[in-house]
Amino acid sequence: MIADPISATTPAGLSERYQEVRQYSEALCRPLTTEDYVVQPVIDVSPPKWHLGHTTWFWETFVLVPHRPGYRIFHDDFSFVFNSYYEAVGKRVLRADRGNLTRPTVEEVYRYRAYVDEQMHAFLESADLTPELHSLVELGLNHEQQHQELLLTDIKYILGHNPLFPGYHPPTPSLLRRGSDPHPASFGGLGSAGSAPFQGPGANHPLPSKEGAGGWSEGIYTIGYRGDGFHFDNEKGVHKVYLQAFDLERSLVTNGEYLEFVESGGYRQFRYWLADGWAWVNENRIEAPLYWHRIDGQWWHYTFDGLKPVDPDEPVCHVSFYEADAFARRRGRRLPTEFEWEAAATTGGFDWGRLWEWTNSAYLPYPGFQTAEGAVGEYNGKFMINQMVLRGGSVATPAGHSRPTYRNFFQPDKRWQFTGIRLVKK
Amino acid sequence: MIADPISATTPAGLSERYQEVRQYSEALCRPLTTEDYVVQPVIDVSPPKWHLGHTTWFWETFVLVPHRPGYRIFHDDFSFVFNSYYEAVGKRVLRADRGNLTRPTVEEVYRYRAYVDEQMHAFLESADLTPELHSLVELGLNHEQQHQELLLTDIKYILGHNPLFPGYHPPTPSLLRRGSDPHPASFGGLGSAGSAPFQGPGANHPLPSKEGAGGWSEGIYTIGYRGDGFHFDNEKGVHKVYLQAFDLERSLVTNGEYLEFVESGGYRQFRYWLADGWAWVNENRIEAPLYWHRIDGQWWHYTFDGLKPVDPDEPVCHVSFYEADAFARRRGRRLPTEFEWEAAATTGGFDWGRLWEWTNSAYLPYPGFQTAEGAVGEYNGKFMINQMVLRGGSVATPAGHSRPTYRNFFQPDKRWQFTGIRLVKK
Amino acid sequence: MIADPISATTPAGLSERYQEVRQYSEALCRPLTTEDYVVQPVIDVSPPKWHLGHTTWFWETFVLVPHRPGYRIFHDDFSFVFNSYYEAVGKRVLRADRGNLTRPTVEEVYRYRAYVDEQMHAFLESADLTPELHSLVELGLNHEQQHQELLLTDIKYILGHNPLFPGYHPPTPSLLRRGSDPHPASFGGLGSAGSAPFQGPGANHPLPSKEGAGGWSEGIYTIGYRGDGFHFDNEKGVHKVYLQAFDLERSLVTNGEYLEFVESGGYRQFRYWLADGWAWVNENRIEAPLYWHRIDGQWWHYTFDGLKPVDPDEPVCHVSFYEADAFARRRGRRLPTEFEWEAAATTGGFDWGRLWEWTNSAYLPYPGFQTAEGAVGEYNGKFMINQMVLRGGSVATPAGHSRPTYRNFFQPDKRWQFTGIRLVKK
Amino acid sequence: MIADPISATTPAGLSERYQEVRQYSEALCRPLTTEDYVVQPVIDVSPPKWHLGHTTWFWETFVLVPHRPGYRIFHDDFSFVFNSYYEAVGKRVLRADRGNLTRPTVEEVYRYRAYVDEQMHAFLESADLTPELHSLVELGLNHEQQHQELLLTDIKYILGHNPLFPGYHPPTPSLLRRGSDPHPASFGGLGSAGSAPFQGPGANHPLPSKEGAGGWSEGIYTIGYRGDGFHFDNEKGVHKVYLQAFDLERSLVTNGEYLEFVESGGYRQFRYWLADGWAWVNENRIEAPLYWHRIDGQWWHYTFDGLKPVDPDEPVCHVSFYEADAFARRRGRRLPTEFEWEAAATTGGFDWGRLWEWTNSAYLPYPGFQTAEGAVGEYNGKFMINQMVLRGGSVATPAGHSRPTYRNFFQPDKRWQFTGIRLVKK
Repeated sequence: MIADPISATTPAGLSERYQEVRQYSEALCRPLTTEDYVVQPVIDVSPPKWHLGHTTWFWETFVLVPHRPGYRIFHDDFSFVFNSYYEAVGKRVLRADRGNLTRPTVEEVYRYRAYVDEQMHAFLESADLTPELHSLVELGLNHEQQHQELLLTDIKYILGHNPLFPGYHPPTPSLLRRGSDPHPASFGGLGSAGSAPFQGPGANHPLPSKEGAGGWSEGIYTIGYRGDGFHFDNEKGVHKVYLQAFDLERSLVTNGEYLEFVESGGYRQFRYWLADGWAWVNENRIEAPLYWHRIDGQWWHYTFDGLKPVDPDEPVCHVSFYEADAFARRRGRRLPTEFEWEAAATTGGFDWGRLWEWTNSAYLPYPGFQTAEGAVGEYNGKFMINQMVLRGGSVATPAGHSRPTYRNFFQPDKRWQFTGIRLVKK
Repeated sequence: MIADPISATTPAGLSERYQEVRQYSEALCRPLTTEDYVVQPVIDVSPPKWHLGHTTWFWETFVLVPHRPGYRIFHDDFSFVFNSYYEAVGKRVLRADRGNLTRPTVEEVYRYRAYVDEQMHAFLESADLTPELHSLVELGLNHEQQHQELLLTDIKYILGHNPLFPGYHPPTPSLLRRGSDPHPASFGGLGSAGSAPFQGPGANHPLPSKEGAGGWSEGIYTIGYRGDGFHFDNEKGVHKVYLQAFDLERSLVTNGEYLEFVESGGYRQFRYWLADGWAWVNENRIEAPLYWHRIDGQWWHYTFDGLKPVDPDEPVCHVSFYEADAFARRRGRRLPTEFEWEAAATTGGFDWGRLWEWTNSAYLPYPGFQTAEGAVGEYNGKFMINQMVLRGGSVATPAGHSRPTYRNFFQPDKRWQFTGIRLVKK
Repeated sequence: MIADPISATTPAGLSERYQEVRQYSEALCRPLTTEDYVVQPVIDVSPPKWHLGHTTWFWETFVLVPHRPGYRIFHDDFSFVFNSYYEAVGKRVLRADRGNLTRPTVEEVYRYRAYVDEQMHAFLESADLTPELHSLVELGLNHEQQHQELLLTDIKYILGHNPLFPGYHPPTPSLLRRGSDPHPASFGGLGSAGSAPFQGPGANHPLPSKEGAGGWSEGIYTIGYRGDGFHFDNEKGVHKVYLQAFDLERSLVTNGEYLEFVESGGYRQFRYWLADGWAWVNENRIEAPLYWHRIDGQWWHYTFDGLKPVDPDEPVCHVSFYEADAFARRRGRRLPTEFEWEAAATTGGFDWGRLWEWTNSAYLPYPGFQTAEGAVGEYNGKFMINQMVLRGGSVATPAGHSRPTYRNFFQPDKRWQFTGIRLVKK
Repeated sequence: MIADPISATTPAGLSERYQEVRQYSEALCRPLTTEDYVVQPVIDVSPPKWHLGHTTWFWETFVLVPHRPGYRIFHDDFSFVFNSYYEAVGKRVLRADRGNLTRPTVEEVYRYRAYVDEQMHAFLESADLTPELHSLVELGLNHEQQHQELLLTDIKYILGHNPLFPGYHPPTPSLLRRGSDPHPASFGGLGSAGSAPFQGPGANHPLPSKEGAGGWSEGIYTIGYRGDGFHFDNEKGVHKVYLQAFDLERSLVTNGEYLEFVESGGYRQFRYWLADGWAWVNENRIEAPLYWHRIDGQWWHYTFDGLKPVDPDEPVCHVSFYEADAFARRRGRRLPTEFEWEAAATTGGFDWGRLWEWTNSAYLPYPGFQTAEGAVGEYNGKFMINQMVLRGGSVATPAGHSRPTYRNFFQPDKRWQFTGIRLVKK
């Protein structure tokens, strides 16, 4: 989920915030071995080294080069290596698969980061920043934070597909720890050590006072970001929608409920599945959520604490849209639309932020959506096809990336993000 | 676009209507050579023989077997051959690619049709049909009519990809000819001989009195089928939507306008394209609409009259969603949503029905959508993922399948249907 | 196995022989329905219609156009449609998959054949043929006969993959019937009706007087065609080889012996298989020879008489090189080299000609092999890589294509030809 | 080219030889960054880390576990990770792509090596080794040396496909340096620093006294390994072959000669190519040898010294069999058979050992070839299909792996080994 923001907040202590965000990216990677930084086991998962380099390339390319006079780029070839968009092909046409790029080394990438950070601090402290530059820096910070969530999900994929099932225990930066941790060990498939620092805003919501679904009445609701803070262009375009009455479950679907679906043959009965989902299940021989393994008749799943037994009381995690939708059909329920979800989240009454929640809305532009001018905004709307919206945020989501209007999106077969299921009673 | 209807009209002369619809399917195929009936050049295109058999299998399986006492099925193996859903695998597991099934022969399929027709007439004339059976027959008629449109598009694909570019001139059943033909030869890429009988309802609409876009104001609109006639389940669920003001172009995009896009390099500039569309263009080396050929510097396209020069004044046809969307971006416009389209079509003011019009709405369920019980309704919602909605109808659409609430749907890369582009002024 | 001959016999009654060969191609196809002529279920199998057209195009292109003054070609586009080599791309670049070419129709192809035959007869009877032209005509006849064998194997594939398992019973042209038929019904998977006319030269060999293997001693043997008759360039280049002593089994491996391999898990034990063979078995889920089906615990196979129980006493047919090799290893035996085979066949002592016999020789040039000049010889050696040699001939091989020096060749995974197994005792 | 030897030499100073070979594997890797050890850019190329682990696993599995009482294996899971044959699937079924295995780390692999080496030294020094154990150790040494050549070719591939084109300069172990270095800088695409230590036996042959081809007369030659030293099972089976007279070029084809082929359109003229080769050229858009880049109209190639201009006087390197064969056809020549090559190499008269030389012989068993019993020999013959034989050895071949009877083999499209071309005058 990489989109580019176009609005900005009033800057305050921008240099400090810059430092904090940048250090956190590195803190996430410090527990890794050098080897862990390098590989790309599937196309969706980028090497951690690439994330560290790409976010740095962003600062160099969009802030330092155009706005810091006399800036000298760190290395001529890094633009080719760390540019995420290959449309404008350079002079050398090499198939530069990210997972085969052993050079630049991890150490060089850290030196690249240090060099750019030094330049950025000088820039941020000395410059008389215009509002446009403030916005641009804010954008860069949010861009890097989005990659922090991807770092976590990609690291989990890399380690979780290693036959040794190694654990992962990042240090917890004190600046990022917020509040107490109501969640038990290995929550959300993340592992106890990992849950504290990545606590989503959900922890700040009061837990629902009563079980079951909450009802929302028919009528006009307003959708879209209305505040002054940072937000992305895809959540702009405040507009009204007309919703029918709906009942949204207060709780996410649990492992125990999902296990019943697995054990009763849910993956082998085509009547629960969308046609494309049924093809996906069969072509990939899907039998359970990602990271689940049945060992000697018992279900285990990989977490950041290693292989652990599946806890039936925790929310089910790492399911695709197809699985979420099939589960809902089996239960005689459905997934909410993104508008129902936003309306409910805005008016309160349920806890969210633990897992990204699949909605039954396709990722499409809001009324009046405009692609921003220039290189930064070039790709804003280009992903608005063949993807479904997720709402809420997860334990891996950095602070500030979980808000009721935030639109995350992935193809319906993706499940390496921290994704879960919330049902609507029809 | 195969969906199953669940409502029905009051039957009147059902046996006659049955005969008319059934004869029309055969009339569409009579100009074919036996060879043309057999092949499946791409997965989307079914052999005409299969359409003739499958629609017959529908009557046998869902009407005659359960509701006509003493009915003997025509051939034991035809259920396996003509069933469109292979989920319930039969005893023999053979990869039965439709395009390799030389048997049953065309002649056998016609005998199968004759046998079932005789039984159906006896059934329709003798039976004291319950309302449920009336509905079921109505469903079968609409099912067969949907396949009539596919027959035309599939025949066009088969002949249009033959290096001899043979023409196709079906007889025009007098019962189906309606009104005068305002459209010039080779309209819509169909060819002059073909345009008359497949005239959509658009011809019945008054031509717009003035050029340019028509404006619709912000507010609540009602969506969904509200009449008493036949309709499909995906257009049920009358509900309100809230729309922003929008201006819809009165005319479809023309070949001349689209040619400018082609000639100015529109297919080679990634900034106009959705990411998936750009991948589609490059992987398939797309350079123009389907059926277009540049021969000695001149653009030609295959029509039912054979290869013809592209007429700049006709609407552009056979474009994918990706192409429609890229063209719109290039013009600083966008495609309408299906709700804008329906609101506009319901309130009149523009001519439609010549080509299916891509909307920027994903094919998703309306509020309260319910999957029908039983075998007929089994698959109603299973296609509601990864597809975009088209509205309007085309010159190939049988009468009764073009109404303002009708929802057609295809994946965004498909373009062998008669698809065109209508823009919204942002 | 399409190679082009470059030598020729003394012509005698060439016009009559031409007629006989040409009529036999048509006789093979007459039992087909029009539909059977059209399809190409896998890339290896060409539509019968294409074979009929391609062999005719050969006469037109290489004999009539260059050597018959005033000849007018039948149709401008047929060269594009029936040319087997697409390297020199014509002006229109269309993906002309053979199995999707509904036009020209079967009837047009027969008219094409009649037109060319009339011209050929006039040419053969009037012309004072040079030796070079005699050779060219001989080449054309052998080319057409090679396609006659492919017609049979392709027809078997088309009908044998139809869920109705239709039979096939070509008329037996009296001119082609030779001798009595010692083979029981459905021999070699061909079916009783089919076996008579396609009898290979093996029937002319005396049946072996005793069971078991025959021994050949160490020494120098001469390989290659030494006669005056027609032969292909790949069997030219008479040369000596030095062979170790070897014992060749007098009989082909039977279904009964092969069944033991199947039933005892031979397809699931990797130690019998070449690495590439093991990958082939697993990727394609191979469990038995082509055309075999296990139905209710019993093994059946498709023959030209329809589905028949597998007869344990017949030779096993339709196996790939990988299967032949794995079976041999399981038995502690090996396949012969093509030189051992030829040495043994030349000196007599075993019956051959029922099935093509896989050898453990790669298809490579003989010493002194030269590519012929000009269009006809252009492709002579281009297939000499990644293929294994088969020797002997089969029940589907036309007379004159079974001789001890004839080299057939296919990739090691192919098995739609009539292929069997003969072992060497190590 | 991994095959397993089955014979052995008389051991002398086995422990010292063990140490030398083991240290050399590590010496080859020491210049690498940790990142370079991890990746697998194409299926043929294994991560250097995997080579280091796999060779160690070999000692542990086949020597220490069965023959050293009380030996404790280093890590339970390493057998799964470093076993090259996955046929016997373990309890955990994970897709263990070698290039995604970040754990065990490089450091752990070196610890694994140290542990096994310590155990092996104790074993070799204390044990009263039977001849069978001597043979087994000899086999392990040769196995590790084969991987040393692969280490070099795989490292070249990894670094040569990095957009930074890093150099590679292994230390030169004094024990392995032999004689003077007659080859100029960046010989064979290897780079100056790299050429000295990897010098093949060719350097020991006298340079040919005169230019041009040398003639060998028709007659019987003896093929196969006849000495007492170590050799592989595929070169056993001494036997006679009968060869026609042939002239073998004394020199390898040079870059300059090959450039003429490239520049004159050799890659775009199908008449020079085998059919499969032509498909390979077009599907992979091949235009030059591997590692060649045309930059601003000039040809460069990657060597261990980085990008260097192509030197027209050096032998062309990194060509596939398809390219070698097409080049030969273009010159009116052909490639030698492996028997011609061995006959010529045995009788002397030309320099070899710089590059592996493609022959026109398929990799097939010699007469009497027997698969060895037990786990070590299990796979001896399994690669004898779809591969072509190479003879000679290269600058990357360890001493003792270049002898006139040694049979290397690869699929005809492979070219990441140090492969060149020697022609036979027809």
